[in-house]
Amino acid sequence: MRVWRLAVGVLLALSAARAFAQDPLPSWNEGPRKAAIVDFVHRVTTEGGRDYVAPADRIATFDNDGTLWAEQPMYFQLIFCIAEVKRLAPQHPEWKTQEPFASILKGDVSHALAGGDKALLQIVAAASFGITKAEFDARVKEFLSSATHPRFHVPYTDLVYQPMLELLAYLRANGFKTYIVSGGGVDFMRVFALEKYGVPNEQVIGSMGKLKWVMHGTTPEQIKLPEILFIDDGPGKAMAIENIIGKRPIAAFGNSNGDLEMLQWTCAGEGARLCMFIHHTDAEREWAYDRDSKIGTLSTGLDVATKMGWPVMDMRADWKVVFAFQAH
Amino acid sequence: MRVWRLAVGVLLALSAARAFAQDPLPSWNEGPRKAAIVDFVHRVTTEGGRDYVAPADRIATFDNDGTLWAEQPMYFQLIFCIAEVKRLAPQHPEWKTQEPFASILKGDVSHALAGGDKALLQIVAAASFGITKAEFDARVKEFLSSATHPRFHVPYTDLVYQPMLELLAYLRANGFKTYIVSGGGVDFMRVFALEKYGVPNEQVIGSMGKLKWVMHGTTPEQIKLPEILFIDDGPGKAMAIENIIGKRPIAAFGNSNGDLEMLQWTCAGEGARLCMFIHHTDAEREWAYDRDSKIGTLSTGLDVATKMGWPVMDMRADWKVVFAFQAH
Repeated sequence: MRVWRLAVGVLLALSAARAFAQDPLPSWNEGPRKAAIVDFVHRVTTEGGRDYVAPADRIATFDNDGTLWAEQPMYFQLIFCIAEVKRLAPQHPEWKTQEPFASILKGDVSHALAGGDKALLQIVAAASFGITKAEFDARVKEFLSSATHPRFHVPYTDLVYQPMLELLAYLRANGFKTYIVSGGGVDFMRVFALEKYGVPNEQVIGSMGKLKWVMHGTTPEQIKLPEILFIDDGPGKAMAIENIIGKRPIAAFGNSNGDLEMLQWTCAGEGARLCMFIHHTDAEREWAYDRDSKIGTLSTGLDVATKMGWPVMDMRADWKVVFAFQAH
Repeated sequence: MRVWRLAVGVLLALSAARAFAQDPLPSWNEGPRKAAIVDFVHRVTTEGGRDYVAPADRIATFDNDGTLWAEQPMYFQLIFCIAEVKRLAPQHPEWKTQEPFASILKGDVSHALAGGDKALLQIVAAASFGITKAEFDARVKEFLSSATHPRFHVPYTDLVYQPMLELLAYLRANGFKTYIVSGGGVDFMRVFALEKYGVPNEQVIGSMGKLKWVMHGTTPEQIKLPEILFIDDGPGKAMAIENIIGKRPIAAFGNSNGDLEMLQWTCAGEGARLCMFIHHTDAEREWAYDRDSKIGTLSTGLDVATKMGWPVMDMRADWKVVFAFQAH
């Protein structure tokens, strides 16, 4: 009996291992999008094949907000910055009468954000101005370890998409170098990108601020300034890819109009390419939004994807699980 | 007899192999600088040792001009740009009367450069303005394959320093990621960095220009603009390291004041660090220059190195060979 049980156990284990080996994307439902990914990876990794790409050129770029983790009801980095404005307010009595801070302190965030990009930059700057990156890192870590999402009541980093984690790992297992190319602040993302996404700092590209060089005796410091060096969004993403990576990606993933140029740039290259938008179609497990959303607007992007025949990932149809905590 | 010869041959081969294994830097003379490098690498790679550094954090940064290849009588990229101005002059009749171009066309380069940074940027822009990176690459390749250095009469890429190639390879063999962090244009360096230095595009950081996004039907292009996005020199090198690599290097190599902040930033980190200036002391095989040179000035940098106790590489004393073609 025991021998039989052992044999059955071994067979079951072998079969599970084979199933895993055969399905590197277990949270993706079978269908055209999953097939497009697997087929693409097969083509670019088949030595001697027409579409073979050497490992050094297997570059895949991912947007972050709305592509690797959620972005509703607003960008998590903005939620962090607003929390920081509240926390730092006692040191800034002038904020009581100064917009956009006054509205935030009164609890009226939408009025604060009505000030547009200028207000946004002021809020972002307030959360990091005049400190080193190490100090900024500590603030972000404290926030990520203590704050919870208003709808799901879990830490923000639990709102990473399980199927996208599998996709990142699958591409890396096939020799890809995976990059984040996001409009978010590069310093903010680097606090959790390695632990949550397996992406090291040097493969995280984002919006960047200017730094000020200060010497304390023989010890240098770099202090964050409230001046933008580079906004990594729209055509800026394609430009950052050229300037920083210096290789054209062969695969790119995004979810909003701000990712369109990155996908266009990627898919205009020769040979096999994969450009995919994540379409947020799942109000129940996540959110459903596209053309009319203030955050993560997807309109022109969707039109171009249709015209170009790019696969558009349908969250409701294509993902078995959205967040790992929902799998229980 | 034959058996003996074979045995002696095998012993000689083994001994040569051991010598190579024992000396990864054969073009470096024994002495304190070579010892400092080998000792540093040993310390950061010894597992369990006090100074052990995980491979992911073994970042080494190298300046290019004057550190990995020569930079006299002037930066090779500038020589390329001047050649391009001459080549493109027929398409720009206005240059005949417009400085700095007029002086270049008359053969008076020093007068053209007397216009300072503004003139320099105009010359650099003229060689790349309004074309794609692919077109720019083709121009650089053509130059590098046809032009020769005025003193050594060899292609410019033959003026890479053999001992530094060995150092790059030695560090990589010990798990380091080697980066170029140079004031030179990132596009210019990427044309030869992989072939000559073994450094892939994504590990080449340099000065960057803005790009313009243009759609031709469904095909995008990025066109080089004559606007600077970022000058990668001085404190800018430390800033680029923070923004692009996001990890503090543990080793840095430079040769001029423009590299000082990169070395200061590197050596201000905790644990074992190696910061080294290349001192050009060899008028015979290369050039001898430091404090009073217009190109690659090394004055404050030398003072700080002395004060901090950083090893200063003495080209004349420390290198058996400077350029590979001189080894014959």
